[in-house]
Amino acid sequence: MTISPFDHPLLTALLGDEDASVHFSAAAELAAMLDFERALAEVEAGLGVIPADAGNAIVTTIERFSPDTAALRKAAAQDGLVVPELVRQLRDAVGEPHARFVHFGATSQDVVDTGLVLRLKPILAILEDRLVGLAEGLAGLEGRFGSVRLIAVTRMQPAVPISVAARIGNWRKPLERHLVRLRGRRPDLLAVQLGGAAGTLDVLEAAGPTVRAALAARLGLADTPQWHSQRDAIADFASSLSLITASLGKLGQDVALMALGGTIALADGGRSSAMPHKQNPVKAEVLEALARFNAAQVAAMHEAAIHPVERSGSAWMLEWLVLPSMVVATAAALRQAGDMVGAIERMGA
Amino acid sequence: MTISPFDHPLLTALLGDEDASVHFSAAAELAAMLDFERALAEVEAGLGVIPADAGNAIVTTIERFSPDTAALRKAAAQDGLVVPELVRQLRDAVGEPHARFVHFGATSQDVVDTGLVLRLKPILAILEDRLVGLAEGLAGLEGRFGSVRLIAVTRMQPAVPISVAARIGNWRKPLERHLVRLRGRRPDLLAVQLGGAAGTLDVLEAAGPTVRAALAARLGLADTPQWHSQRDAIADFASSLSLITASLGKLGQDVALMALGGTIALADGGRSSAMPHKQNPVKAEVLEALARFNAAQVAAMHEAAIHPVERSGSAWMLEWLVLPSMVVATAAALRQAGDMVGAIERMGA
Amino acid sequence: MTISPFDHPLLTALLGDEDASVHFSAAAELAAMLDFERALAEVEAGLGVIPADAGNAIVTTIERFSPDTAALRKAAAQDGLVVPELVRQLRDAVGEPHARFVHFGATSQDVVDTGLVLRLKPILAILEDRLVGLAEGLAGLEGRFGSVRLIAVTRMQPAVPISVAARIGNWRKPLERHLVRLRGRRPDLLAVQLGGAAGTLDVLEAAGPTVRAALAARLGLADTPQWHSQRDAIADFASSLSLITASLGKLGQDVALMALGGTIALADGGRSSAMPHKQNPVKAEVLEALARFNAAQVAAMHEAAIHPVERSGSAWMLEWLVLPSMVVATAAALRQAGDMVGAIERMGA
Amino acid sequence: MTISPFDHPLLTALLGDEDASVHFSAAAELAAMLDFERALAEVEAGLGVIPADAGNAIVTTIERFSPDTAALRKAAAQDGLVVPELVRQLRDAVGEPHARFVHFGATSQDVVDTGLVLRLKPILAILEDRLVGLAEGLAGLEGRFGSVRLIAVTRMQPAVPISVAARIGNWRKPLERHLVRLRGRRPDLLAVQLGGAAGTLDVLEAAGPTVRAALAARLGLADTPQWHSQRDAIADFASSLSLITASLGKLGQDVALMALGGTIALADGGRSSAMPHKQNPVKAEVLEALARFNAAQVAAMHEAAIHPVERSGSAWMLEWLVLPSMVVATAAALRQAGDMVGAIERMGA
Repeated sequence: MTISPFDHPLLTALLGDEDASVHFSAAAELAAMLDFERALAEVEAGLGVIPADAGNAIVTTIERFSPDTAALRKAAAQDGLVVPELVRQLRDAVGEPHARFVHFGATSQDVVDTGLVLRLKPILAILEDRLVGLAEGLAGLEGRFGSVRLIAVTRMQPAVPISVAARIGNWRKPLERHLVRLRGRRPDLLAVQLGGAAGTLDVLEAAGPTVRAALAARLGLADTPQWHSQRDAIADFASSLSLITASLGKLGQDVALMALGGTIALADGGRSSAMPHKQNPVKAEVLEALARFNAAQVAAMHEAAIHPVERSGSAWMLEWLVLPSMVVATAAALRQAGDMVGAIERMGA
Repeated sequence: MTISPFDHPLLTALLGDEDASVHFSAAAELAAMLDFERALAEVEAGLGVIPADAGNAIVTTIERFSPDTAALRKAAAQDGLVVPELVRQLRDAVGEPHARFVHFGATSQDVVDTGLVLRLKPILAILEDRLVGLAEGLAGLEGRFGSVRLIAVTRMQPAVPISVAARIGNWRKPLERHLVRLRGRRPDLLAVQLGGAAGTLDVLEAAGPTVRAALAARLGLADTPQWHSQRDAIADFASSLSLITASLGKLGQDVALMALGGTIALADGGRSSAMPHKQNPVKAEVLEALARFNAAQVAAMHEAAIHPVERSGSAWMLEWLVLPSMVVATAAALRQAGDMVGAIERMGA
Repeated sequence: MTISPFDHPLLTALLGDEDASVHFSAAAELAAMLDFERALAEVEAGLGVIPADAGNAIVTTIERFSPDTAALRKAAAQDGLVVPELVRQLRDAVGEPHARFVHFGATSQDVVDTGLVLRLKPILAILEDRLVGLAEGLAGLEGRFGSVRLIAVTRMQPAVPISVAARIGNWRKPLERHLVRLRGRRPDLLAVQLGGAAGTLDVLEAAGPTVRAALAARLGLADTPQWHSQRDAIADFASSLSLITASLGKLGQDVALMALGGTIALADGGRSSAMPHKQNPVKAEVLEALARFNAAQVAAMHEAAIHPVERSGSAWMLEWLVLPSMVVATAAALRQAGDMVGAIERMGA
Repeated sequence: MTISPFDHPLLTALLGDEDASVHFSAAAELAAMLDFERALAEVEAGLGVIPADAGNAIVTTIERFSPDTAALRKAAAQDGLVVPELVRQLRDAVGEPHARFVHFGATSQDVVDTGLVLRLKPILAILEDRLVGLAEGLAGLEGRFGSVRLIAVTRMQPAVPISVAARIGNWRKPLERHLVRLRGRRPDLLAVQLGGAAGTLDVLEAAGPTVRAALAARLGLADTPQWHSQRDAIADFASSLSLITASLGKLGQDVALMALGGTIALADGGRSSAMPHKQNPVKAEVLEALARFNAAQVAAMHEAAIHPVERSGSAWMLEWLVLPSMVVATAAALRQAGDMVGAIERMGA
């Protein structure tokens, strides 16, 4: 066992997903944060909130800015996050007289939360694509094996004959609903966070809402009032992830039971170190493991939605500890389910 | 401590909710199950699937039918649910030659799941009404105290001055989203379940979908193909409940912290047995407790959505063990939040 | 579905357990609370902390005291627990001049927590007895079927031949460890709670520790300094419960898989309302459901162990919402496992 | 946010712990697995189960063996774990005629589970040392500030005066019990796993138990019959971890509340990017976040203890996904608590 199988030299291809996890690297996070700071400077300069020269200086600096990560790490241990030190370094790099216009009117949470949302956007596209692909894969299976007979199993007993299509239908239909769910949750989730020190954009005064709207537009996000202590959209997204993996966990359990009973054949069974004859339904097991993993994590995300006062470091850090793993687990489960479905060679009878 | 504070002689008014829990009494469950059987007989008779005489006999019998609950209890211990014995009793009461047309083409899960959904419908109305009422209550507070100054608290430190309205906004805005969520989840949730032995409506043959559509219409539910092993809508509903209580838990925590810091006055503080001077913010504490309760339960509901093969007694019973408590917890939290908001006499400064 | 299947007119024999749940009735809780108050008065009178006459008056009153439960219910909704009103009623009943010596030096939490522990004591005896009985039942099975051949299943594939005894061993050995665990956790768990208003026994002054030791002795509990905000022993007990049900859930899953594969025969299979030929392994399903239920609840109990300051109503109420169900689930699982094992008629081959 | 803050270029010093996480690197895992294979070959050669020459060849090979990690990664994706490929590589390196005596009589799970336990041993030492150190730190605080007055807080209201020592006692006493718990759980936890294909050591025939006992002795572990599908000791260890972090979460919450109320001064407060005057109690927040994180994870570990049949890939992988994070979270919490306590400059009044 190593710390995170989601980001692991040996187990990534089994339990992780590189397409998703690349968005949760430290580099990707810093890039997203700097995208925020650049866009903020651009819109603030465009609206005359900060001097045009300051805006240009900040944008130009960010283009060639490479943070001192050793200093970031050290500061994060004291400050609870990297932003104060990142802003300090950026101000240093911008230099006088423009330094004070870096991060103007914003607070750390604006940077971190918007930086997260910017990365959830491509992740949603990955998840949605894979849901579509998996549904197609299942439709293909149905075309090949749908009319084959299968004995239904209810309450762990053989029941009555059904078709393979009937069982596949129970796998495919939830995917369509998951896709509708993810799409429906985009507007609340993919929203800019800009609130300043306590959410009131006090430093920006009357220009606050205009700056926020322009920032949202520039970043391709929805414009909503600050949501720094309103975590329902994040927790609802986490729930959606776990709903997806639960459906895939059901698929995995069904395939594993079919493998045990001999009513399915998989091309890519796993090897055993002690029993060379075995073809273990490894991907099916992975699906069940990831489903139960996410089911437990969703409790932590709902806990984190109990976010007191204007900002709670503890509720917020709890999200950091949980959400990225849930995203990667979901992406991995969709990928593994697709691969497993593609490796099915026989069903039913 | 007693088994369930949600249904308890002494703690109901604190932690439970009678408006919601009445729908989870054994009597309400049996009534909903019999509603299902009556409507099924009616539509099957109307469509000529069963003889009209049989339909009449069944409907007439159900109108005056009172199940032998001692026998139900005994049978449930063996069968894992009451339906087989309930159907047996009902067939006995209907008598020959119509007995075999009772429950025609249906299976136990159809009765239990549709019986649940029939009761979730009025519960949704309760929850939605209370969300609206609580939002109004908060708007009222904002009207009274919104312009009062308050020191924001971020990361457990006094931050900058905000208005009471800014804090209340963080309580009210999520309620609007919760309302949209609940309404949006109605179609998937409030859907008839009719599948027969293994979900294929095999006994009803070609008439299956027609019977199901007519049954749905008669019961005021959406018509969808069987979802007996597709529990995503139920789990998503459970998540919605926990999202609501998480937002109310945040409200509770904020009020408790304000009570500790002296920036709120509540009319209905709780008494202490040792310190007569205290006015404990009991309702605020209840909100936090119910929020953390639901957050843990939602994990179990996502576990239960990993529902193998055509029917799993264990995944299904797990829902029975969890969902009713989540519903009552949510209804109770909304009620207590409304009462608490109504008892606020001073905020801020 | 009804609110709590653990305390339910129809499902109790399936999912509940009357031997355990009787200790979580409102009547049992009130009786335990009054036992506390009586014992406190006795030891305080014996030590001269309160007048002997007061002690006699309190003891005599409690012997014939029947609380006004309607008033308790009403007060609990305001105070967050019944104790302040219960003490008020008891003082009323004792009358002047002794009334003020009722509950002398104690606080509500002393009454509730010690009242809980007094009931956990007989519950531990039930659980331990059932663990022993189940282990014996499994030993009996091993005697009857142990030498029969069985194909091991690893990673959902047939593996190599083993004996039925080898599989049973995996069921029985954890029970022995659970028994050791429960016994080992008794001293920390079965400890008196007496702390007064803030845990310092301030009202009792120098006599505090002596009163506490005498109270513990009289109630048959261990004497330890107050643990009102130290919930590790309670949470550890809850973990022990879930460890037991997890082992029984494994037993249930194994039996269900054997039932599906035909390598076990059970005398008491459940009936289906649609398929008369079936013999559903209902008790095995119950074991898995209760195991997953407890696994989710244990998260809530560990949450509740994050108990801030000298007393947190919310962390404490969270325990009330969860622990009794966990206890009853564990007792029920042990009972159902014993019954299931007793109904096994054939294993292996 | 990045995937795992426990193993992260920027957040490690905040949320992770290098002393603990080094034992969960891929390199450490491979080293522990090879330690297992070497010790197995040594004891089997010593007992004449495999030829002495084979034993020597295996030991010598392992000393200079460096696995092809790219091939391991590829194989893990198919096999569900690295062991079959690792054994294949090792057999290749050993060459004929000894290759077949590598891993003789063992199975993948023996390697992985014993490899885990070998690393948990130094981790237990770290945790126990830190528990002792933190208790000493708290005793030191008590010496400095214990007699200062503090107003107790019960149910989020000021209660009665206590001493700082009284509050510190509620932080320190659970640590002593945690230490006893960890020590008490060593024998069950630090036990060799050796079972072969299905747990019966069938390949080793009569020599099985002797080999296992010798292997245990060589590795410094307890000798017990195989526990591959009996996960109660692992789950109980996970519970112990969460109990520790819950106590530290309470400490964190208390300190954060004291920081808000001004009754504590910390030397190392965190900076804000928007409010230069702030001194955020970051370590206190970390403690609460890690406590709630572990509380949710413990549910997954109890789920994983529902481990069906002779070996379940899914239940087992669920442990891999969860346990290492829990260990690191606990080590980090103990470290951060120690640092926080060391930075306290004033308490009470």
